[in-house]
Amino acid sequence: MTSPLLEQLIDALRVLPGVGQKSAQRMAYHVLERDRAGGERLAAALSSAVENIRHCVRCRDFSESEVCTTCASASRDAHLLCAVESPADRLAIEQATGYRGLYFVLQGRLSPLDGIGPRELGLDVLASRLAEGEVQELIIATNPTVEGEATAHYLAQLARQHKVRPSRLAHGVPLGGELEYVDRGTLSHAFGSRSEMAE
Amino acid sequence: MTSPLLEQLIDALRVLPGVGQKSAQRMAYHVLERDRAGGERLAAALSSAVENIRHCVRCRDFSESEVCTTCASASRDAHLLCAVESPADRLAIEQATGYRGLYFVLQGRLSPLDGIGPRELGLDVLASRLAEGEVQELIIATNPTVEGEATAHYLAQLARQHKVRPSRLAHGVPLGGELEYVDRGTLSHAFGSRSEMAE
Repeated sequence: MTSPLLEQLIDALRVLPGVGQKSAQRMAYHVLERDRAGGERLAAALSSAVENIRHCVRCRDFSESEVCTTCASASRDAHLLCAVESPADRLAIEQATGYRGLYFVLQGRLSPLDGIGPRELGLDVLASRLAEGEVQELIIATNPTVEGEATAHYLAQLARQHKVRPSRLAHGVPLGGELEYVDRGTLSHAFGSRSEMAE
Repeated sequence: MTSPLLEQLIDALRVLPGVGQKSAQRMAYHVLERDRAGGERLAAALSSAVENIRHCVRCRDFSESEVCTTCASASRDAHLLCAVESPADRLAIEQATGYRGLYFVLQGRLSPLDGIGPRELGLDVLASRLAEGEVQELIIATNPTVEGEATAHYLAQLARQHKVRPSRLAHGVPLGGELEYVDRGTLSHAFGSRSEMAE
């Protein structure tokens, strides 16, 4: 390599997920050859994001202010609270559905072996929020994995303790999928949970 | 999105080649959730690279100093000069072969329709370098594309004008490939250029 700074840049790019040595090289060359202004913009955006983005004290999602724009918004329905594992899950629900309630981002799932218990997921914050009495339904949207299901059960208990109705996203055959390729567990669940068709 | 800075970061990440909206989101979340120190390091490496990396006046490759470390090195053979299209090609040759000569990086290929002529490729610099009389062989390693071949012909003429021997990388069947899947042009060329086997 002709330049130590270039080596450092290629090395630094590898912190990004899914970027190995070859892609990092390609990215570094691209920025230097074709888009130096974009590179400067990216450097500024990165350092300002790392410096200023913290967690919202209400929902634990990323936020620059103490309370994020969603939690601070008067147009959201404060009776509904949706618990998700990650900011990416929150974003997926926000983009796909017409949901107008609020969110609570666990930033993980219960995993005792990894030392992730209720404290790490901010469930004390969630409990005091449910105790406020405004939330009527807790929509539990953790992932349908073993750990996600365990977390869902725990959250449902917590909700019932505070007289809040827990609900869970429906499981079943994905739209546009073919039955032949749906896994057994999902198919069996969908078969068991069949519903009567409206006329 | 809960944070304008986060939106800016996701947007800025899209300057990287092969990074769309989804990957940019994943990268931003990864940096913020798991590796803020890495994010800061990347920001610093990017801005220092964009600011300080220029082109070597001898070989036109990326360099922080006026003359890059390869061109300045006393241990390289100054009789051999290898012309490549891009810094990435130079790096590939450097890593794959035991080549100990010098390089000349064209930063492109002749493409009159895009306004890329001999001037843009620094061929005046190359000509004065060949005129110095030290270079004995110009190894032309442009890509085996139509434009790369045209560039190679032009470079070969330039070399002959300065009494420098031009050479070209061998074309043929790639090692480890299967004949069945080699394209016709390559196979026909390899067949025509067959060489006698040593005993």
